[in-house]
Amino acid sequence: LSQRVSRFGTTVFSEFSALALKHQAVNLGQGFPDFDGPDAIKEAAWKAIQGGVNQYAPGVGAKDLRVAIAEHSQRFYGHAVDPDTMVSVTSGATEAILDVILGLVDPGDEVVAFEPFYDSYDANITFVGATPRYVPLRPPDAAHATWWFDRDEVKAAIGPRTRLLILNSPHNPTGKVFTREELEFLGNLCAEYDVKVLADEVYEHIVFGPARHIRAATVPVLADRTVTVSSAGKSFSLTGWKIGWIIAPPALRDAVQRAHQFVTFATASPFQAAMAVALRLPDSYFQELTALYTEKRERLLTGLRAAGLKVYSPEGSYFILADIAGYGFADDVAFCRHLVTEVGVAAIPPSVFYGPEHRHLGQGFARFAFCKSEGVLDEAVRRLGAKL
Amino acid sequence: LSQRVSRFGTTVFSEFSALALKHQAVNLGQGFPDFDGPDAIKEAAWKAIQGGVNQYAPGVGAKDLRVAIAEHSQRFYGHAVDPDTMVSVTSGATEAILDVILGLVDPGDEVVAFEPFYDSYDANITFVGATPRYVPLRPPDAAHATWWFDRDEVKAAIGPRTRLLILNSPHNPTGKVFTREELEFLGNLCAEYDVKVLADEVYEHIVFGPARHIRAATVPVLADRTVTVSSAGKSFSLTGWKIGWIIAPPALRDAVQRAHQFVTFATASPFQAAMAVALRLPDSYFQELTALYTEKRERLLTGLRAAGLKVYSPEGSYFILADIAGYGFADDVAFCRHLVTEVGVAAIPPSVFYGPEHRHLGQGFARFAFCKSEGVLDEAVRRLGAKL
Ligand SMILES: CSCCC(=O)C(=O)O
Ligand SMILES: CSCCC(=O)C(=O)O
Repeated sequence: LSQRVSRFGTTVFSEFSALALKHQAVNLGQGFPDFDGPDAIKEAAWKAIQGGVNQYAPGVGAKDLRVAIAEHSQRFYGHAVDPDTMVSVTSGATEAILDVILGLVDPGDEVVAFEPFYDSYDANITFVGATPRYVPLRPPDAAHATWWFDRDEVKAAIGPRTRLLILNSPHNPTGKVFTREELEFLGNLCAEYDVKVLADEVYEHIVFGPARHIRAATVPVLADRTVTVSSAGKSFSLTGWKIGWIIAPPALRDAVQRAHQFVTFATASPFQAAMAVALRLPDSYFQELTALYTEKRERLLTGLRAAGLKVYSPEGSYFILADIAGYGFADDVAFCRHLVTEVGVAAIPPSVFYGPEHRHLGQGFARFAFCKSEGVLDEAVRRLGAKL
Repeated sequence: LSQRVSRFGTTVFSEFSALALKHQAVNLGQGFPDFDGPDAIKEAAWKAIQGGVNQYAPGVGAKDLRVAIAEHSQRFYGHAVDPDTMVSVTSGATEAILDVILGLVDPGDEVVAFEPFYDSYDANITFVGATPRYVPLRPPDAAHATWWFDRDEVKAAIGPRTRLLILNSPHNPTGKVFTREELEFLGNLCAEYDVKVLADEVYEHIVFGPARHIRAATVPVLADRTVTVSSAGKSFSLTGWKIGWIIAPPALRDAVQRAHQFVTFATASPFQAAMAVALRLPDSYFQELTALYTEKRERLLTGLRAAGLKVYSPEGSYFILADIAGYGFADDVAFCRHLVTEVGVAAIPPSVFYGPEHRHLGQGFARFAFCKSEGVLDEAVRRLGAKL
């Protein structure tokens, strides 16, 4: 083993997916829908396969997908994107995140991110020999209607050694959607220290009004320093196809692409063709997706409350954090182990998404995914009500 | 830009594919077939898509594909592979190579490889802060019937600081197939210094008798130190599907998997299902593939000779190196630029597959791919005959 990987074990997603299987638990753990996206997308993939789109795609991605990504950016955010110089297609957002960090961060640099974080951020920062600086998001309280961050803590974290700020909005697992004013505050700090921004927006289409997703790259102070990372998996309920992308000003796109070409080189050609079709689906598709998840969120929130849990209603993403402090477990990992083995419901312990310094802040929560069919959500609630 | 990526530009494959398109050249550059693999594989992918295999695969890969990889290893090489503890599925061999280097090599370690090399090796070694040590393969001469290496040069390169030896057989771009005796020599040196081996065998099914592909991991001295990397792209003429894998003893598999989970996390699910079908195709499929490429190799060798080029007949892979020393160009890059713009044929300049020290050794060659239909090969030969 290299020292870099000896620090960490298996991702919590693999661990709890395996446990769910073993104990025949209802799986509200890893965030994948138990239903698929539209048939039109599947048929587009088959048409590409039959039509001979089966050899290496260009390293930057198929032209038609890059054009569709640019059109989608214009349509939803008024974000003007040149498909030839500002887009690279990747094998999912996870690869995109690594490409950005490889392309922009040197050993010894610092990378600032919010806790809880998607676990690959921390691993990727380690991969390149950089140092993470984490700022915890704080739960809603008397003074804050949503998850929030302490501005002084951010100011203390960002400085001359910071190379990159990672900004995930809508945020997994808290469901926070960063406001324009918050993005401007962070952008001004980044401008002061010439910090680049990785904006992970993979849940961009799963946002619940009155919250509204702001594409970070459209905030003027962030425009020329931001690499947007997104993917098709969540927006089109096809997480297994692994089509992601980055959008960035040409110089930053170029840096990321230089890394990408030596990470996976290119991404599955037929699914690129299909995702170009997906991104051009009419507005009604995206409205129906929001409506679907609005209903599922309500269903699970209601059910978790009925089972006695205190829950935080997410503004975006398909995750709900529940407060587990009153249940007498040593921590969230113990709670989630009990849940999967004894209650028959898999959830994710969010303390693994914190660095050592703030880990205790995550130990009072469990994360439940609601990207599941009604029967599955209801059965999970039933088990929790009966056995928790 | 990070320093790590500022060292290199665009891969030569992207550069010459773009040039070929621009100049409407016959493309014998990047190694992808201009024909697709069997319909049965395509239909298996469609069946998986229709059947709902569209969400995240397990991080280590779909069980059925891992079983098929193990069966294939047993069938062709008598290589006993446990699908649960010795296999991980990756997004192509390029990702697999990065995963191995991330999982096994620390900053400051040395990695030994032969020149010419697949260009991602050098980039990936740089990514992790290790140092490459290259040993050039030498062309056939009076004393050597095939490409060969100087054993003293290998002994000088491998030592106590070496962490990994990269062994690519069948070898791109020379077409060398390493013999059992050569593998044993290298294995003994690796054993002496406790060096691990990355065996890149993506051209395992494109070998021309009397040469025979030896799976490095079946050579006893290499068995417990070798990570085999392979992929479906070349064996099934579907390079754009990007399904690769590694096979290794459990502890090494574990190290690679720890990296993989934070590189792409998982690989396209429907294509994993389809490639399980592909790997179980009867022996006749693989025999016909060899027969097809035997014919194409002969066709291009004959044609290049007729056009006046001195050629090296490959024992494996779908590439031919031609000697361009007599044409009066400054180097292979100048020759290949002339070829694509003036003659209308794209080839790859192999000097980019050498480190700075031995780059001159590659400057006398050009690489031509013969994974193309007869009409395309014939038109390339016609243009070369007319204008070179
Ligand atoms: C590869 S797991 C991706 C993220 C996700 O789905 C989750 O947080 O559960
Ligand atoms: C991603 S290019 C892979 C290797 C190859 O096909 C080539 O050498 O041309």
